[in-house]
Amino acid sequence: MIVQKYGGSSVSTAEKIRTIAGKIRSRVNEGEKLVVVVSAMGKTTNQLIELASRVSTAPLEREMDMLLATGEQVSAALLAMALNDLGVPAISYNSFQLEMVTTRTHNNARIRDIKLIKLQKELEKHEVVVVTGFQGITDEGHITTLGRGGSDTSAVAIAAKSGSRCEIYSDVAGVYTCDPRIQPRARKIEYITYDEMLELASSGARVLHARALEIAKKYGVDLYCASTFSDERGTYVVHDLPEWLEQPVVTGITSDPNQTKVTICNLPNDTKVLSRIFVNLAQENVNIDMISTVNDNGHSHLTFTFISGNFEVVRKTLDNTLKDLEGWKFSTDDKVIKLSVIGVGMQSTTGVAGRFFSALSNSGIKLLGTTTSEIKISALVHIAEAERATEALAKEFDLLREE
Amino acid sequence: MIVQKYGGSSVSTAEKIRTIAGKIRSRVNEGEKLVVVVSAMGKTTNQLIELASRVSTAPLEREMDMLLATGEQVSAALLAMALNDLGVPAISYNSFQLEMVTTRTHNNARIRDIKLIKLQKELEKHEVVVVTGFQGITDEGHITTLGRGGSDTSAVAIAAKSGSRCEIYSDVAGVYTCDPRIQPRARKIEYITYDEMLELASSGARVLHARALEIAKKYGVDLYCASTFSDERGTYVVHDLPEWLEQPVVTGITSDPNQTKVTICNLPNDTKVLSRIFVNLAQENVNIDMISTVNDNGHSHLTFTFISGNFEVVRKTLDNTLKDLEGWKFSTDDKVIKLSVIGVGMQSTTGVAGRFFSALSNSGIKLLGTTTSEIKISALVHIAEAERATEALAKEFDLLREE
Repeated sequence: MIVQKYGGSSVSTAEKIRTIAGKIRSRVNEGEKLVVVVSAMGKTTNQLIELASRVSTAPLEREMDMLLATGEQVSAALLAMALNDLGVPAISYNSFQLEMVTTRTHNNARIRDIKLIKLQKELEKHEVVVVTGFQGITDEGHITTLGRGGSDTSAVAIAAKSGSRCEIYSDVAGVYTCDPRIQPRARKIEYITYDEMLELASSGARVLHARALEIAKKYGVDLYCASTFSDERGTYVVHDLPEWLEQPVVTGITSDPNQTKVTICNLPNDTKVLSRIFVNLAQENVNIDMISTVNDNGHSHLTFTFISGNFEVVRKTLDNTLKDLEGWKFSTDDKVIKLSVIGVGMQSTTGVAGRFFSALSNSGIKLLGTTTSEIKISALVHIAEAERATEALAKEFDLLREE
Repeated sequence: MIVQKYGGSSVSTAEKIRTIAGKIRSRVNEGEKLVVVVSAMGKTTNQLIELASRVSTAPLEREMDMLLATGEQVSAALLAMALNDLGVPAISYNSFQLEMVTTRTHNNARIRDIKLIKLQKELEKHEVVVVTGFQGITDEGHITTLGRGGSDTSAVAIAAKSGSRCEIYSDVAGVYTCDPRIQPRARKIEYITYDEMLELASSGARVLHARALEIAKKYGVDLYCASTFSDERGTYVVHDLPEWLEQPVVTGITSDPNQTKVTICNLPNDTKVLSRIFVNLAQENVNIDMISTVNDNGHSHLTFTFISGNFEVVRKTLDNTLKDLEGWKFSTDDKVIKLSVIGVGMQSTTGVAGRFFSALSNSGIKLLGTTTSEIKISALVHIAEAERATEALAKEFDLLREE
């Protein structure tokens, strides 16, 4: 048994659904039994949200889930019809029928259990079971949805529970060494580890949701990410790279433009002040990313970035937090981008940081901030320098296709 | 507890859903607990059927039900949101959650049981439970739909099981003595019996589906049919008319233009021939309505009408059935209409047939066929004479508003 997942853009029209049904048939003809997880058609979810906003100023989360869950049920039923039309015995299943039990957190539920016995029974009678992604039910029988990346999560969870492989199909042909929109010579990665992929996903690469990856990593689910409508080879996401593969030091570069830099100079050299700043920002739901501090003559200078937060909220929170202190200076910059190089190979290789900083400085890039983790080095740079910085790093770490 | 049902045209837009929510709130403020059964929004069901036809030439019935059931779930969730937005505690329920168990006949299932305990539990916590009409589940947990008139049937079944009254809201303001499109002086009927209403429904009046009426009659459910968006008084459908009401002989006139007349002359005077004709037509799914025979000098002449059948199929079937016989003559006419007067009062009143035929003949109407039942007399007339015939009958039986 193999689990496949098709995203919203892959099932956005009747014609695409028929095309997918044809692809699935070839796999069935090769002797495989498939569980196919589908998202809602194209923009359906957004249309339903729009409809809800027109009947209610603050739609109840429980009813929102009831509403949104219909989207996947439509695409699941249509794909099952299309498969049967091609002579492939198939049946659609919603989260109720599958008993995909989740927590009671509407709009953002987490999967607690999946009754495999039902799936297995249907797979005895059919070649394909089409399952609604993104949704579940509570132990009380209310419909839930899994939040962002929900269909990926459904697919990986089913694969995890059943010990199957999982194939994720979308309009992205796999995982690349850099963002192909910034660097046209970006190379497709054939094998990548869960940890590298997690860093990529959380840094904005949109192939696969981090939450689904966490489950894949925890249960050792072999993943394959590829394009729905091309036969081009995709990317395998695995626990360990195959032994025959020469392990690269750096697997890829990600860029995240969704950052605003805040610098506060001349703070007292007191950790309590720092802690108060970040506690208060967290209470306002400001999502902090990079943090750097430098001490100098009894003063402390702080740089941090926040993502998807509100600038006015940050300013007010800082004003309130620091109102009893004097002498500090505050500045912000939202024309910044975070570039990160990622690779499990770093852990066993020395000098990676040196090569990273040299590559940037040799190209005259100004470094606005930096953070590191075990398998990642990140630099904050001006957005105007992003392309040049990406090229410098890609060359340094051998991430480009040959011309 | 009261059960209300709103049809597709009543929930076709977000604005209409908000309006209905306001009407429901007034009822809740009067101290009532409501179960509200909804259909899919406007043309949703047709759009889903169209979508299915584009992925499959012959969509599986099981998958069609999976697909169509989403329509009511959308409107139920939206109405629950709109109610909560107005401060009315409400929750939506689909057929799975309600355990509305049906037979396994997909696309045309019949209700077998409804678990009231679930509804009652939710009504302790909420003022309104919004329920998806038109659908159910099998004992194996597959989704079914109830076919034509399904939402009416859902509503009446819930009312029957819970011993509640049932209010049916639609874009028709009630039941009229004649079709207001043919006779503008048609009068709204305030009280009508189940049996009369059944005759009206099966003769084409589209206020309430005959199937729902059968259930209402069987379990003595008091029905009220009225317009969704006006406060005009509607029609009560009851077992017995209130005693204070003077019982009319004739309650209403219906017209059914969907008829084709077939006449076969000079058949042998042999019942076997008749039986063979109708058995063979039934095998071809030709739906026969009126049948009249006249014997004359050892020959038999037959007139019948068929509804919603195919003319070519009828002709071929008759040719095959009668191919060993000689001398018979065949003619058809589809410019005919069936007019029926209906009234439980007929049973206790003599001379109704006489008044019926006199009224028509005094107006110079040519009678092409006739049938009677205990509470109905029907005449087949030329479509060109329909208006005049309706007026003659309406005058004779006092069915018009005063001018």
